[in-house]
Amino acid sequence: MKLRHKDLLDIESLDRSEIELILDTAESFKEVSARSIKKVPTLRGRTIINLFFEPSTRTRVSFEIAAKRLSADAVNVSGAGSSVSKGETLLDTARNLQAMAPDVIVMRHHASGAPHLVAKRLGAAVVNAGDGMHEHPTQALLDAFTIREKKKTLSGLNVVIVGDLIHSRVFRSNLRLLSKMGSRVVVTGPPTMIPPRIRDLGVEVAPTMDAAIEGADIVMMLRVQTERMEGAFFPSIREYFRLFALTPERLRRAGSDVVIMHPGPMNRGLEIDSDVADGPYSLILDQVTNGVAVRMAVLYLLAGAKDETPEDP
Amino acid sequence: MKLRHKDLLDIESLDRSEIELILDTAESFKEVSARSIKKVPTLRGRTIINLFFEPSTRTRVSFEIAAKRLSADAVNVSGAGSSVSKGETLLDTARNLQAMAPDVIVMRHHASGAPHLVAKRLGAAVVNAGDGMHEHPTQALLDAFTIREKKKTLSGLNVVIVGDLIHSRVFRSNLRLLSKMGSRVVVTGPPTMIPPRIRDLGVEVAPTMDAAIEGADIVMMLRVQTERMEGAFFPSIREYFRLFALTPERLRRAGSDVVIMHPGPMNRGLEIDSDVADGPYSLILDQVTNGVAVRMAVLYLLAGAKDETPEDP
Amino acid sequence: MKLRHKDLLDIESLDRSEIELILDTAESFKEVSARSIKKVPTLRGRTIINLFFEPSTRTRVSFEIAAKRLSADAVNVSGAGSSVSKGETLLDTARNLQAMAPDVIVMRHHASGAPHLVAKRLGAAVVNAGDGMHEHPTQALLDAFTIREKKKTLSGLNVVIVGDLIHSRVFRSNLRLLSKMGSRVVVTGPPTMIPPRIRDLGVEVAPTMDAAIEGADIVMMLRVQTERMEGAFFPSIREYFRLFALTPERLRRAGSDVVIMHPGPMNRGLEIDSDVADGPYSLILDQVTNGVAVRMAVLYLLAGAKDETPEDP
Repeated sequence: MKLRHKDLLDIESLDRSEIELILDTAESFKEVSARSIKKVPTLRGRTIINLFFEPSTRTRVSFEIAAKRLSADAVNVSGAGSSVSKGETLLDTARNLQAMAPDVIVMRHHASGAPHLVAKRLGAAVVNAGDGMHEHPTQALLDAFTIREKKKTLSGLNVVIVGDLIHSRVFRSNLRLLSKMGSRVVVTGPPTMIPPRIRDLGVEVAPTMDAAIEGADIVMMLRVQTERMEGAFFPSIREYFRLFALTPERLRRAGSDVVIMHPGPMNRGLEIDSDVADGPYSLILDQVTNGVAVRMAVLYLLAGAKDETPEDP
Repeated sequence: MKLRHKDLLDIESLDRSEIELILDTAESFKEVSARSIKKVPTLRGRTIINLFFEPSTRTRVSFEIAAKRLSADAVNVSGAGSSVSKGETLLDTARNLQAMAPDVIVMRHHASGAPHLVAKRLGAAVVNAGDGMHEHPTQALLDAFTIREKKKTLSGLNVVIVGDLIHSRVFRSNLRLLSKMGSRVVVTGPPTMIPPRIRDLGVEVAPTMDAAIEGADIVMMLRVQTERMEGAFFPSIREYFRLFALTPERLRRAGSDVVIMHPGPMNRGLEIDSDVADGPYSLILDQVTNGVAVRMAVLYLLAGAKDETPEDP
Repeated sequence: MKLRHKDLLDIESLDRSEIELILDTAESFKEVSARSIKKVPTLRGRTIINLFFEPSTRTRVSFEIAAKRLSADAVNVSGAGSSVSKGETLLDTARNLQAMAPDVIVMRHHASGAPHLVAKRLGAAVVNAGDGMHEHPTQALLDAFTIREKKKTLSGLNVVIVGDLIHSRVFRSNLRLLSKMGSRVVVTGPPTMIPPRIRDLGVEVAPTMDAAIEGADIVMMLRVQTERMEGAFFPSIREYFRLFALTPERLRRAGSDVVIMHPGPMNRGLEIDSDVADGPYSLILDQVTNGVAVRMAVLYLLAGAKDETPEDP
């Protein structure tokens, strides 16, 4: 079996069986990082370019480590030193990189839709590593992997997503994935941070954090992205913490087997209390660990599996 | 056969047989990037340092990919994070890197002659990846490779080079290479951008773009390097476009088997019309593809061939 | 035999036998960089993260080359592009990297003690590549390697350390190492640059450079770290040069088999005269060469030797 598209641009264009294929493949790669020799020859001689127009630690490092553990050659290009600063168009930059025969271009860009624009014109596989406020599909996949690992299912779960929904590509990708897999998404956050017409997407909006969290299986806290906020979206940090932070007291309203997730980087004391972040319900570091496995799976399915005969022609 | 010098600093010091050696070697490496496993063990255990004092995407990535496809270890050093910013001299930086036993130092520097200064004092091979307004030899070599691939020869051709000649190391390296190989170079551009005494170099200066292009086999457009221009070298972008841009109309004056080249990054709508850049005569992306092969050849000839017995002692 | 600690944080916590173990191991790795194929499979499949919050050329490159010559995968993370700039704590950044299963995190940080803080909370091995004004243990180890290679011993030597002692982590690490190994350390420098109560550390303070240098076996010049000086620590460069620079005249007061060292980057004409830096007594480039061997040893002992049965249980 293989993916239907040459790219991984968003969760929207994946169907359930593709999501399951990625997660199952990640499962088989996860143990590689647990070995003392953390390397398989799967993608030897393949070239992966990480083209990051926005700075990032964990996502770029995660893809780079994933590539290297598959024995691929990883090449990093950052927006700062790139020819875009010399007036080149994004498409020309991408076409030039493609002319050097990479197998996959992993791309983060501040503009929503940028990876789609590029992918349509290139033969190389493009992975969206976050585009503006649109999607961040590998984050949703690693979140799903982490949930499935813990809950043994992705359907029938009550998932609460809290915070800065309007700026969050992580929210958008997670919402799509969880809905496709049959879970129920409830959100809450400051009214200024809730996208208009969000109910049209099948999301329930809870009036308060306390109401949202009641009976939740999973609480996913979003990062307050101060760097994306041009105006004042909430009155004060103290106010935000009081109304929307995940604290131990608040957590008691959730189910006893609730788990806590956060895509990072965390603002401790703003959207999440340290006792929760570091507590027994937290899967935050599992998410990071699983990110490497999920990205190995994505790189493998896009770059490595293409030579194989698909099982379902 | 091998190169006579330990370094590749400029086209000036290469003779015809060395140029042909590099191009022939590149030809044999080109197919590596077309394989699904794009890697040969040729330079396993060799260390290539990319020392870039000027930002660059395509050149640094091209050298890095070339090194990795030869199985060499590639290490990137950029001017910004370097000890030069702590007051160290260029020569001390280079000597320090050499003390770590690299096989090749690939170097881009804003000062003309900087790689020569370094090469004279180091045992390691130095490759000039662009020095100020002086030379960019691997660019001229990949251009020559691309021309030879298409035209089956490098002699007897009419090559037109258009634009910002005075700031262009690409022009200087191409002029030297094409003259050595027996082709005729005609140039045109704004009078302020044509180096004084250029005719002494055996170049013909055409009065207009239309005159230059008449009967051309190759039209090489140079990038208007707005970042290198301190004063005003031409009245306006519209004026530049009207007089010197390569447009479909203008292209009709050239021979029917004309080819178009550009070293990139392109300013679309300034020195070149998009219809030409993306049209059937354009070799612009072939240049990028061939760049990897040419750089593999250069790294191999400087780092790998040194252990072999030369055929012509 | 192996190191007692999972980390290499400072010289203070190493005992004599551990120092000797590192130096002996480095000796066996030194010849790898002298081969034409400079690579051993020792750390294949291990992941080394270079986490540098301060810019550095030689230290980062030295660790990266050391990792690659041991066949480990090296991943670079710089403070600038890191999530620390998004408000994440240092510990969260480190925990996130650890969740991707690196074997060693090599860390440079502007705050003294930062690597200790991180090491205490992580399972991964942490190597301090320089923390604020505290320690730079691999520098002292490569200095010791270089001294031992030349002098065949590390005990009973007269070592003079000159200059900006108060800002120097190199001084602090060297003082500890040389004292442990039984050598005598004499210092001199501008009174404003000598730490108060330095005599409590067993150091002799010479009144002048001339007095200090008399009979010295080793003269170690420190870099004047203009970038760390907020106020005026010395009246003028000319004054500094006159009183504390190492010149050929001054060097004549030392023993005839004196050797000169400097951790780099050098300020020629400020703390050291070019004739001395490039002269026959200088070991400055040997230090850099040995740095790769010492870092190979440290990475091997922390990442590779852990699977082996220790000889002394």
